[in-house]
Amino acid sequence: MMRTRPLKVALLGCGVVGSEVARIMTTHADDLTQRIGAPVELAGVAVRRPSKVREGIDPALITTDATALLKRGDIDIAIEVIGGIEPARTLITTAFEHGISVVSANKALLAQDGAALHAAAEQHGRDLYYEAAVAGAIPLVRPMRESLAGDKINRVMGIVNGTTNFILDKMDSTGAGYQEALDEATALGYAEADPTADVEGYDAAAKAAILAGIAFHTRVRLDDVYREGMTEVSAADFASAKRMGCTIKLLAILERAADGESVTARVHPAMIPLSHPLASVREAYNAVFVEAEAAGRLMFYGPGAGGAPTASAVLGDLVAVARNKLAEATGPGESAYTQLPVSPMGEVVTRYHISLDVADKPGVLAQVATTFAEHGVSIDTVRQQGKDGEASLVVVTHRAADAALSGTVEALRKLDTVRGVASIMRVEGE
Amino acid sequence: MMRTRPLKVALLGCGVVGSEVARIMTTHADDLTQRIGAPVELAGVAVRRPSKVREGIDPALITTDATALLKRGDIDIAIEVIGGIEPARTLITTAFEHGISVVSANKALLAQDGAALHAAAEQHGRDLYYEAAVAGAIPLVRPMRESLAGDKINRVMGIVNGTTNFILDKMDSTGAGYQEALDEATALGYAEADPTADVEGYDAAAKAAILAGIAFHTRVRLDDVYREGMTEVSAADFASAKRMGCTIKLLAILERAADGESVTARVHPAMIPLSHPLASVREAYNAVFVEAEAAGRLMFYGPGAGGAPTASAVLGDLVAVARNKLAEATGPGESAYTQLPVSPMGEVVTRYHISLDVADKPGVLAQVATTFAEHGVSIDTVRQQGKDGEASLVVVTHRAADAALSGTVEALRKLDTVRGVASIMRVEGE
Repeated sequence: MMRTRPLKVALLGCGVVGSEVARIMTTHADDLTQRIGAPVELAGVAVRRPSKVREGIDPALITTDATALLKRGDIDIAIEVIGGIEPARTLITTAFEHGISVVSANKALLAQDGAALHAAAEQHGRDLYYEAAVAGAIPLVRPMRESLAGDKINRVMGIVNGTTNFILDKMDSTGAGYQEALDEATALGYAEADPTADVEGYDAAAKAAILAGIAFHTRVRLDDVYREGMTEVSAADFASAKRMGCTIKLLAILERAADGESVTARVHPAMIPLSHPLASVREAYNAVFVEAEAAGRLMFYGPGAGGAPTASAVLGDLVAVARNKLAEATGPGESAYTQLPVSPMGEVVTRYHISLDVADKPGVLAQVATTFAEHGVSIDTVRQQGKDGEASLVVVTHRAADAALSGTVEALRKLDTVRGVASIMRVEGE
Repeated sequence: MMRTRPLKVALLGCGVVGSEVARIMTTHADDLTQRIGAPVELAGVAVRRPSKVREGIDPALITTDATALLKRGDIDIAIEVIGGIEPARTLITTAFEHGISVVSANKALLAQDGAALHAAAEQHGRDLYYEAAVAGAIPLVRPMRESLAGDKINRVMGIVNGTTNFILDKMDSTGAGYQEALDEATALGYAEADPTADVEGYDAAAKAAILAGIAFHTRVRLDDVYREGMTEVSAADFASAKRMGCTIKLLAILERAADGESVTARVHPAMIPLSHPLASVREAYNAVFVEAEAAGRLMFYGPGAGGAPTASAVLGDLVAVARNKLAEATGPGESAYTQLPVSPMGEVVTRYHISLDVADKPGVLAQVATTFAEHGVSIDTVRQQGKDGEASLVVVTHRAADAALSGTVEALRKLDTVRGVASIMRVEGE
């Protein structure tokens, strides 16, 4: 079954992930050959800075002209680990046009232009694999696309950003505030100098869009994903969460509506019970909880980033794409046949945990309770706490539409007796 | 891309899993058609008791002659959910001989005859998929075979039997003894009337053999798997575990030796720290922890049994096999190119937690410590506890070869001052 002509691989980008991919392709060449049924050969490495010393990579393979590498006629598979929109998008399209299948780790591009790239792959009869684009090393795209292909996924809830999980875990375990925990994450290399993409939820939103498409067999654009960052989460919120037997995580949540006719996609911090499997995901680990009709509740856990873990996912895809190439077949392409509308955040049904600073006088609770009732939001529990003439009121609601909950909060802010809304957080995972 | 001639499926067995497979094939026919690219049709159902009423299945499809069904010439894919060795083995072989690809949920058969069945599938150019054979609905076989195909798996540690996890979780959370917890499991339908296969670890050992083969690309026979049941685990063991910040799980553990030249496979109860992700796997859930060289630490969690979850895994395989059939390709077959020897249990390196009942007099600890030293086993901690003239000694060792640890225990039993070895348990997951 073994053939000797090697499959030729063009590596586009040679940063943290790319250099690991090249290293493993070299050190594990024999294993890869056995698993694929043919050798794979690194036939070219396109980089921006050719002068940089790259250990273990033959300098003759280095080029700055990625397009020429793809067009030279002998490449079977391209691995795109450049990241960002351009030139990655044009290069991937060029690859398909030249009969080259593509493995990509590019979440931003897949989230923004996944549909067009899938269409291009299909048009040219080539593969587009991207396990590494979501949750790093964790096998997630393949299990959702293939293992659960005979099932119906109703809900996906995940921790898909390691930086923010590291920060929140620190806040939870040490009582630190946001800034202190962020500083530690930066010092340890878990957060970038500009942490915006992580802490404001942009990174998680891109992954949410990709996962929603796979889970629901529909197209979910990045703009369809409701996004709230976690920079406002405070030590006081963690104290409140603890009193409820909860912790706080930045979650990507994708849901099919009860009637099955629409979906929702959102990223925001939320309280989840300590008994939930996601609550025990520590440090920079990622985990994704999937609820399917027949399979029930599944969870996938592992490192969500890093050079070697991401390279592991890229190489798993490389093996699959190489096997497909030898069989002259392609793997499953985009499956977006349901065309379900994405509902706005206001239609999401969830629960709220609201902390209010209120005047310490009789009738306040009645006034607050009336406001909730007027907006059709049912209260689960209320806790009153007096302190030096001031008082605080912590309300946890039953499930209600997000718009009704927002409306309630807006009305509460206008009450004389409410001096301030100290915090608002959704409660998930029950 | 859509073709209209349906792929014809023979369902062999129609018990708890088979009837769910038939139900989902009917109710989700449109989804399956979209995901495969052609309709799949239930073309025949082989059963033992044809008179039994089977809701939702056309009685005209029912037959007692599974062999004739496979030989009739129009079947593309067979789903084997009979279980056990025969007639399942002969039927699967017959299927391959007639050009039929097979999806099986049969762990006992795969563990015993996996190599021969894989060889038969390859000889006839057909697929053999069996995601449902290990850990029910949890995508595990595909992620390990495909997602991690570019990585090197060094260790697999899993809870792969739901019945025993339910029992151990009850013992942990309620302080119940083994028999009481087993009775509850039986009453709730989690344990069978004869629970031997579960509680003695036979079921877990079969799954361990299958997983070891996939993880290490080598053949591991059922006889190669060391097996210890969990019927001796006591409430006192859980109390000891708690004092160490641990709980007790029945684990399947597969390891590649440090030199990479051999592997080990074993099933036994073990203490694991509460901070380990496997410690929080409750009730009848399964979870498998995989350590790979590049990917790092991954975990896969979900329901390990039950009709619908197992059917989900079967249908995922059905979609893959059907897609392969349409592409006139086959998926990855057995990958057993490494031919690594399986070392005996004595060579496994692990830690022990040993409770001794000893005479309450001076010099006992020195005598016990000397015995450990003589066998080359280094002690991590010792705790002494006196009670009414008797005393107990709890020793936790550092890592040592299992044979050295067994030898130590044997020698301890012969000491005058040791009145009895109250319990011995391995400590894992650190």
